[in-house]
Amino acid sequence: MKKFTPTERTTLKRLPSRAEYDRETVYKILDEAFLCHVGFVVDGQPYVIPTGYARRGDTLYIHGSAASRMLRSLAEGLEVCVTVTLLDGLVLARSAFHHSFNYRSVVVLGKATVVESAEEKFAALEAFTNHVIPNRWAEVREPNEQEMKGTLVLQLPLVEVSAKVRTGAPIDDEEDYAIAVWAGVLPLQLTASTPIQDERMQTDIDLPDYVVNYSRPAKNE
Amino acid sequence: MKKFTPTERTTLKRLPSRAEYDRETVYKILDEAFLCHVGFVVDGQPYVIPTGYARRGDTLYIHGSAASRMLRSLAEGLEVCVTVTLLDGLVLARSAFHHSFNYRSVVVLGKATVVESAEEKFAALEAFTNHVIPNRWAEVREPNEQEMKGTLVLQLPLVEVSAKVRTGAPIDDEEDYAIAVWAGVLPLQLTASTPIQDERMQTDIDLPDYVVNYSRPAKNE
Repeated sequence: MKKFTPTERTTLKRLPSRAEYDRETVYKILDEAFLCHVGFVVDGQPYVIPTGYARRGDTLYIHGSAASRMLRSLAEGLEVCVTVTLLDGLVLARSAFHHSFNYRSVVVLGKATVVESAEEKFAALEAFTNHVIPNRWAEVREPNEQEMKGTLVLQLPLVEVSAKVRTGAPIDDEEDYAIAVWAGVLPLQLTASTPIQDERMQTDIDLPDYVVNYSRPAKNE
Repeated sequence: MKKFTPTERTTLKRLPSRAEYDRETVYKILDEAFLCHVGFVVDGQPYVIPTGYARRGDTLYIHGSAASRMLRSLAEGLEVCVTVTLLDGLVLARSAFHHSFNYRSVVVLGKATVVESAEEKFAALEAFTNHVIPNRWAEVREPNEQEMKGTLVLQLPLVEVSAKVRTGAPIDDEEDYAIAVWAGVLPLQLTASTPIQDERMQTDIDLPDYVVNYSRPAKNE
């Protein structure tokens, strides 16, 4: 796959060795995570809001109520920054200074625009649901006309994109390796625990596989 | 504890029932998480960067290399938004529309300034380490003069602050409760797996308790 082309704005000035522009790397991060932080500016003040997203090809979709301040601002054509971060572990070095995180993050810069086509909007909504819980969409009630009207879907082209990745062991100063302290990596991951069935469930339905075996990245990916 | 005072900018327009301004709620979220997303603006473009942070009283600290574009921009006195998000679960409703996340998030708006006092800077660095891994600081080599010089620590007062929290079961439209689909909450949490010892460890050192029993929120909190 063709790499993303670094721009002045997506070129890492610090630790450039951690920068990646491979489409495959970027897609993998975007497909494993499902929460992003959207940055936008209103009256000179930056706001950063956590929200869900989905990717279809080279388009990132975010959505929300047509009444939300964030999405109304975006719809007016403001520049956005969408950042997706996966935390993979704690890096325990011998010196305080070299402690770090293992992580994978993607930063997308660009202009978000409203998805006007009803067909594309519907496909994006399906992607939101199935991105978080594969196969869920087919089992639940689809959005009705009123819900479609109340939902704003925005698209952001994956053009100005960079990933940043840190993996592996701590890197200490050479003279610090002799220090008698435990050093290494403590891996971290998002895990699911016992599902809590809604008390208002009216019929006896088995827990679906996609709930019982929930994991990220999704097993069918 | 005294509540934070909502401002025009921290008053939720959408779903105001999810807004919280309790200091206790805000502190708890900030003390459990350790990754934030910092938003700032350069030439009209918002940037959102993941980074570590620590809280001491009503001050939030972030840090990084004195050479980083983000921190240099902040040091010039740009407005920032620091957002901290904890994802607590997937909310599976009967309709696609009412699917949601359970989460707790904090948004801090304000102006970050450089910590000039060497003493406060050192205390902030200690807080970064111990915030992520309680008790780690006492065992590792402290920052030397050169490392202190190369590190920029910024402080952001916790003044313009809001939290947003969603908990509990899905809320479906009344007529949808009859739909025969599993509904409920799948709890999610960040968990640690088996520590990976650095191959360059020169002496045999037991895994510290704070690694073996790692959890968020930290057990001593």
